[in-house]
Amino acid sequence: MTTLVNFRSDVTVEYRDHMGDDKRVVEAMLVSTNTTDAADDLKREPGRINYLMRDRHGSPFEHTALQFVVEAPIFVFREWHRHRIGFSYNEMSGRYSILPATYYIPSSDRHSVQVGKQGAYTYEPAETEDQAWLIADMKAEAIENYSRYERRLEKGFAREVARMSLGVNIFTKMYVTLNARSCMSFLSLRTKRETSRFPSFPQREIEMCAEKVEEHFARLFPLTHAAFEKNGRVAP
Amino acid sequence: MTTLVNFRSDVTVEYRDHMGDDKRVVEAMLVSTNTTDAADDLKREPGRINYLMRDRHGSPFEHTALQFVVEAPIFVFREWHRHRIGFSYNEMSGRYSILPATYYIPSSDRHSVQVGKQGAYTYEPAETEDQAWLIADMKAEAIENYSRYERRLEKGFAREVARMSLGVNIFTKMYVTLNARSCMSFLSLRTKRETSRFPSFPQREIEMCAEKVEEHFARLFPLTHAAFEKNGRVAP
Amino acid sequence: MTTLVNFRSDVTVEYRDHMGDDKRVVEAMLVSTNTTDAADDLKREPGRINYLMRDRHGSPFEHTALQFVVEAPIFVFREWHRHRIGFSYNEMSGRYSILPATYYIPSSDRHSVQVGKQGAYTYEPAETEDQAWLIADMKAEAIENYSRYERRLEKGFAREVARMSLGVNIFTKMYVTLNARSCMSFLSLRTKRETSRFPSFPQREIEMCAEKVEEHFARLFPLTHAAFEKNGRVAP
Amino acid sequence: MTTLVNFRSDVTVEYRDHMGDDKRVVEAMLVSTNTTDAADDLKREPGRINYLMRDRHGSPFEHTALQFVVEAPIFVFREWHRHRIGFSYNEMSGRYSILPATYYIPSSDRHSVQVGKQGAYTYEPAETEDQAWLIADMKAEAIENYSRYERRLEKGFAREVARMSLGVNIFTKMYVTLNARSCMSFLSLRTKRETSRFPSFPQREIEMCAEKVEEHFARLFPLTHAAFEKNGRVAP
Repeated sequence: MTTLVNFRSDVTVEYRDHMGDDKRVVEAMLVSTNTTDAADDLKREPGRINYLMRDRHGSPFEHTALQFVVEAPIFVFREWHRHRIGFSYNEMSGRYSILPATYYIPSSDRHSVQVGKQGAYTYEPAETEDQAWLIADMKAEAIENYSRYERRLEKGFAREVARMSLGVNIFTKMYVTLNARSCMSFLSLRTKRETSRFPSFPQREIEMCAEKVEEHFARLFPLTHAAFEKNGRVAP
Repeated sequence: MTTLVNFRSDVTVEYRDHMGDDKRVVEAMLVSTNTTDAADDLKREPGRINYLMRDRHGSPFEHTALQFVVEAPIFVFREWHRHRIGFSYNEMSGRYSILPATYYIPSSDRHSVQVGKQGAYTYEPAETEDQAWLIADMKAEAIENYSRYERRLEKGFAREVARMSLGVNIFTKMYVTLNARSCMSFLSLRTKRETSRFPSFPQREIEMCAEKVEEHFARLFPLTHAAFEKNGRVAP
Repeated sequence: MTTLVNFRSDVTVEYRDHMGDDKRVVEAMLVSTNTTDAADDLKREPGRINYLMRDRHGSPFEHTALQFVVEAPIFVFREWHRHRIGFSYNEMSGRYSILPATYYIPSSDRHSVQVGKQGAYTYEPAETEDQAWLIADMKAEAIENYSRYERRLEKGFAREVARMSLGVNIFTKMYVTLNARSCMSFLSLRTKRETSRFPSFPQREIEMCAEKVEEHFARLFPLTHAAFEKNGRVAP
Repeated sequence: MTTLVNFRSDVTVEYRDHMGDDKRVVEAMLVSTNTTDAADDLKREPGRINYLMRDRHGSPFEHTALQFVVEAPIFVFREWHRHRIGFSYNEMSGRYSILPATYYIPSSDRHSVQVGKQGAYTYEPAETEDQAWLIADMKAEAIENYSRYERRLEKGFAREVARMSLGVNIFTKMYVTLNARSCMSFLSLRTKRETSRFPSFPQREIEMCAEKVEEHFARLFPLTHAAFEKNGRVAP
């Protein structure tokens, strides 16, 4: 059997569910003062959320949840899983399933050359033919890599053994659940923006995930997102 | 000003919101094997959830949330807040608000005498007149306690100073968010049941909270709750 | 039996143990680059730790521990226990022990009057006679409070019942273990300094604990503490 | 440049530091009862630790630390990093360093064939010639894999790009800090023993790490380890 190998240069962050909204954050905050906003106080929400963000009162943002199904290569999940607090994960297992034949390959315009000093690299495009070579090289390797994987499975080796040398650019899938506070911590470290008060140097591929997470976050929690942006993208 | 002091011998655990259900747990589990159940596979859910519980695969239960507004005395919250992982809290603040005049008083049938050895106490009823004395004594003290609190506030002392000697039986209120996994950890330690594989010795008042939490949990996640019960009430 | 009640206006944060030092933080950092510093590179440590702090690389600071035995009133522990991540606690139990007769009473120079608006209060001294009244009032209440507690115990009521109305200013004791990263998070929120980039408004009594924690921290991790101070007392 | 590729069929868990011991666990426990053991009470330690384990009083075990430097392949670290609570990690970075040319290859006696049903696989040896083929195949692939990696680096591609297709069997190194409680949770899930009350099905390679962790743990905390073993290897 020879399975056709698929190549992707993108990632998927599919919305699955969420709990709460900006109003919920304010509600949780108002428990502190044992008050509730009257219906005509909704106009106070932006100021209240901005106050929480500015003064780093982080806990009210935790009474929320965001849930996604993510498809990305292993090297991205390796970075993502280092976020431990306020994150729950379930990922496709190479022990319990045969991983599908999909590999990450940089796009032709992925900036692939690092410049600057360690810890603060920036990235520039490679020469066109170099980038083309890289892509062809990675495709060839992926095809070979998956072929060896399948051969081992066909010979009867255990999945957990056959998968031992899969490349970190093979795709897997995970369920991830986080809250608005852990989401902001993630965005703060995994995106690079002009508006950030603190520098960050994410690898582009996890930033691609973070940008999609941020779109969902901004849509579901618009006031919280605006306050995050206004306060230098520092997680409270 | 003399505010009338209220006495309560119960607690409140009001449902506020939740995310996910038993089916979600199975969905998160099936990411591992990269499969999904067909519509007619729903009958497999109980077995699957039981398998997760029995073999302590805890992470699929985390892709859920339960959210409550709880009213209970401080001595209960003191115990509750020791649950750190998978719990988010926002509580009424004695620095930002004037705590309302509500105190916990044991009911006439609260078992108030400890017997047995330390670490494994059981509780028996006190003599009727002793229990009556206790209740009267605690009521008198609460009235005095709140009166001193108000006098300090009236004299212009800061809330954070006036509240310094409030009794741990004064009620406050909190927002609490947890997930099905942290919920089971809480129930495992804060209830005492025949069906428990491991012993636990909760104070009755936090158990009263836990029982109400369990009602909500059993209603929202019936298969998960049944598997928890079937497997000795051990959190996975 | 009438136990003499003790009054304290201070707190205790006694050093118990620690693990690691500034050099350990650098060692953990250098795993990233698979390098080690030669002996004569020790002069690079301050710069390296400053880089970690500035760019919010927090994880290397976690490979350390600080351990204290703290004596403080319950209202302080209530705030402290809200720090969930990187904190381990074991506290004297009112269920398993009879709490000693020691209560917190504000000192004569404790600033007891709040001014300014909610969420950003500052505190000023009360009139001398008002403060004296407050102290006398709290002492009288504490004596009465402990006397009722003892009477209930003498009558045979369970410890967990007798303690139900103890004031939140009674002292207990706890073992607390944290790491350099969680320590900085604690200091950032529980002290108020000119050098802080973000505002914070701790209650004075937990700040008294935090100041003692900070002395130990600065002594054990001088370079980390200096970098924390230099970078606006923001936890990485 | 062609770097010689090294093959390993083992892992390294090197002791780096620790804090506390069995006596510390008892000390933290005794804070609850506000007592201390006299010198001649040391004989009570085993019973006390056994009581904590049996009744799942987990927090006293947290006032300890163990610290290791681990060398293992990425597929092992992928599993290890799913332990989030009470674990701190710093790992060699493929963005900041060039990963050394060391790959994991199964030994000739690694059981490589799975039997039984999903979720409860057991493993048996493959035919001798099949295992030899597997080892040769993985070695050839590793040499090719590292050669492509080096070629990309030589052509000037960024480290984070060149490393994108490294096999998950390449070795990296990490600093890991945990405490006695999180250690027992890890051992409970990542070893498979006759004495375990709950079943577990770890991949052999992470179990190899866990066995080395357990040796250090048993040496540093002999009474805690004995109580863990006696109580069915269930983490408290």
